Amino acid sequence: MMKALVYQGVNKIALAEKPKPALKAPSDAVIKVTKTTICGTDLHIKKGDVPTCVPGTILGHEAVGVVDDAGDGVKSFKKGDHVLISCICSCATCEYCRKGMYSHCTTGGWILGNTIDGTQAEYVRIPHADSSLYRVPEGVDESALVMLSDIYPTGLECGVINSRVSPGSTVAIVGAGPVGLAALITAQMYSPSLLVMVDMDSNRLKVAESFGAHSTVNPGVGDAVEQLMKLTDGKGYDAVIEAVGVPATFEMCQKLLAPGGTLANVGVHGTKVDLHLETLWAQNISITTRLVDTVTTPMLLKLVQSGKLDPKKLITHTFKFSEMEKAYETFGQASKHEALKMIIEM
Amino acid sequence: MMKALVYQGVNKIALAEKPKPALKAPSDAVIKVTKTTICGTDLHIKKGDVPTCVPGTILGHEAVGVVDDAGDGVKSFKKGDHVLISCICSCATCEYCRKGMYSHCTTGGWILGNTIDGTQAEYVRIPHADSSLYRVPEGVDESALVMLSDIYPTGLECGVINSRVSPGSTVAIVGAGPVGLAALITAQMYSPSLLVMVDMDSNRLKVAESFGAHSTVNPGVGDAVEQLMKLTDGKGYDAVIEAVGVPATFEMCQKLLAPGGTLANVGVHGTKVDLHLETLWAQNISITTRLVDTVTTPMLLKLVQSGKLDPKKLITHTFKFSEMEKAYETFGQASKHEALKMIIEM
Repeated sequence: MMKALVYQGVNKIALAEKPKPALKAPSDAVIKVTKTTICGTDLHIKKGDVPTCVPGTILGHEAVGVVDDAGDGVKSFKKGDHVLISCICSCATCEYCRKGMYSHCTTGGWILGNTIDGTQAEYVRIPHADSSLYRVPEGVDESALVMLSDIYPTGLECGVINSRVSPGSTVAIVGAGPVGLAALITAQMYSPSLLVMVDMDSNRLKVAESFGAHSTVNPGVGDAVEQLMKLTDGKGYDAVIEAVGVPATFEMCQKLLAPGGTLANVGVHGTKVDLHLETLWAQNISITTRLVDTVTTPMLLKLVQSGKLDPKKLITHTFKFSEMEKAYETFGQASKHEALKMIIEM
Repeated sequence: MMKALVYQGVNKIALAEKPKPALKAPSDAVIKVTKTTICGTDLHIKKGDVPTCVPGTILGHEAVGVVDDAGDGVKSFKKGDHVLISCICSCATCEYCRKGMYSHCTTGGWILGNTIDGTQAEYVRIPHADSSLYRVPEGVDESALVMLSDIYPTGLECGVINSRVSPGSTVAIVGAGPVGLAALITAQMYSPSLLVMVDMDSNRLKVAESFGAHSTVNPGVGDAVEQLMKLTDGKGYDAVIEAVGVPATFEMCQKLLAPGGTLANVGVHGTKVDLHLETLWAQNISITTRLVDTVTTPMLLKLVQSGKLDPKKLITHTFKFSEMEKAYETFGQASKHEALKMIIEM
C-alpha cells in the first residue's frame, strides 16, 4: 500500500491508503515520485468541473521521480533512472501522435490524474513510458523540472507559439497565474517589442514586472481596454494570450487584437463565449486553442540545463506530502497567500 | 455626365445620371468600365446592412476596363491600357500594405462602391492606380477576369489559404454561393483528399459536383453534421470554410472540425456568434477571419493565362448596363434563377 491524494467527490479530497500501482502493459513504467505539485486543473477537478475524473482517482499530472519498475517493452529507461513525468502520455504511434499532437493520443493525452491515477502519490504508473518520460539532465534542480511537466510547455505552446509571438511583436497576456507567467517568461525568448501583463491581483502584477513584463494593467483600476490600447497607440496587439478561462476575459482579448493579430486561448473554459464576428470578420485575425502537446519539453530541458531558463522562480511554497490537504487549501486561496506554484516533497 | 447605378437608401437603387469622375490625386486613374458584375455585398448594401456606404454612392467593386486618364504620379498604366480593377485599393506604402495586408490600407482597402463611388458606372476613379490595377494579359477573356476582382481571391485567401488546405486535407465548404464555389475550385490546386460542399440549394450542389466536389450534403435533408462526420469516419475535417455568414452555419462549422483543424470564416457576419470554447479549448483548433487582401491576384492571373483556371464557369447570366435594375432583381432571387455570377456589359 501507499499514500495518495484521492478525489473523493465534489469538494472532497483526502490523503488515503491506495494499492501501490503495478505494470499493466510491457510499455508501462512505475515511478517512485520524489516531487510533485498542484495545478489549477486539480482545483477544477476538486470542484467537480471535470466529469472525466471520477471519485476514487488519485490526482496530479506533474512530477519528477525515479523509475521503480519498467516493463519489458520499455527501451529508454531502467530502474533507478531519474525522470521527469510529462502531463501528456503519448503512444508515439497513433494518427495524432505521428502528427506531433500528443494531447490527442488515442490511448494517452491528458489521462494522469484524470482518467487514470496521477502523480500525487508515492508511486505512479506511467503508460507509454518511452514517449511519456524524460531523463533528468545531470546537475539540474529537480524542483525546477516539476514546472516542466505542464506549466511551462502549456504557457509556451498554447500561449506563445500559438499566438505566434515573434521578434517585434506586441503581446498582451491576460491572466498572471502560473501559466500566464510561464507564457510571459517564454515569450521573451522570441524578442517581442512590447509585453504587457493584465491581472486583477496587484501582487501577481508585481511578480510579472520582476519577470520581465514591460508594463502591467489591472482591470480593477480604470478602463483596462483603453489603457491597453493606449500602450499600442490604438493599434492593438499582434498577440493576445488568454490565460484565465472565463467569458469576460475572452471578450476583453477580442477587443485587444490588432488587424492581423492572433488570440491564443490557454484558459480552460466551462461555458460557451460570445465571438464578435460582426466586427472581427474583416479584421484578418486568428483564434487558436490547444491542449498542451508537450512537444517543447526537450527544448525547455535544454534551456534549463544551459541556465537560460530558471523555472524555479514560479515556486513560492514548499510542503511535505503529509501536508497535502493544507497545500490544496493554500493553493485554493492563492491570492491571499501570494502563491504561484508549490513543490510537494515526498 | 454618365450613367451609374446609385444606392439611394434602404432598398432603393437606381440607374441615374452622375458627373463623370475626374482625377483627384496624381496617383489616381479614371477607368472606362467595359464589364462589371454584382456582388452579394452589393445586396447587403441595398438592404442597408453596410452603414459606411451612404445614399448617393455608386455601387460596385468588380470590373475590367480601359484607362481613360492617369495622374502624373501613375507609373505603370497609361491611357488605353486594358486593366482589371481589384476590389481592394492599396497605397502599397502604409504600415498594413507593407505587411501585405492591403485590406487594411489606411487610405484604401475596400472603399470602391462603399466609401467612394464604385464600378457599376461608365467610368470609375481608382485611387493608388499603380497598386490597385492589374494589366489584362494578352488573349484572356475579359469577362473571366471580372471574377478576379473579388470572388476568386476571396475564396482562395479567406477560405482556402486561411483554412490551410494542403495535400491530403479533408475539406468541408459550407455555402455554395459564388465565393464558396470559388473556394471549391481553388482548393483543388492544393490536392485535398476529400472536398465536400454543403448548401440548402440542390441546384448549387449539382454545380458544386460539376466543379469537382467529391460529395455534397444538403442540411435540408437529414442531419447534416452526422452525414458530414460519417464522410470522415467520425474524425472531422482538417479545413472547414464558412461561406454564408450567419450564426447557424458558423455553429455547424465548429462541430465539423477535426482536432487540429482550422475554421476559416469567409462570410460577412452582422451579429455575434456563439463560440463553444467549453469543448473547443482542448481541440487544438484555429479560427481565422479575413477581408480579402487580393495578394493572390497575380497568381490567379497567371493561372487564367495558362489555361489552368477558368473563372468564367461561375458566370450564369449576362445583362446590358441599361438592364442593371433587372440584374439586381435576378441576383436578389439567385436561387429561383439558378444565378451565380452575372456579367454586366457596358
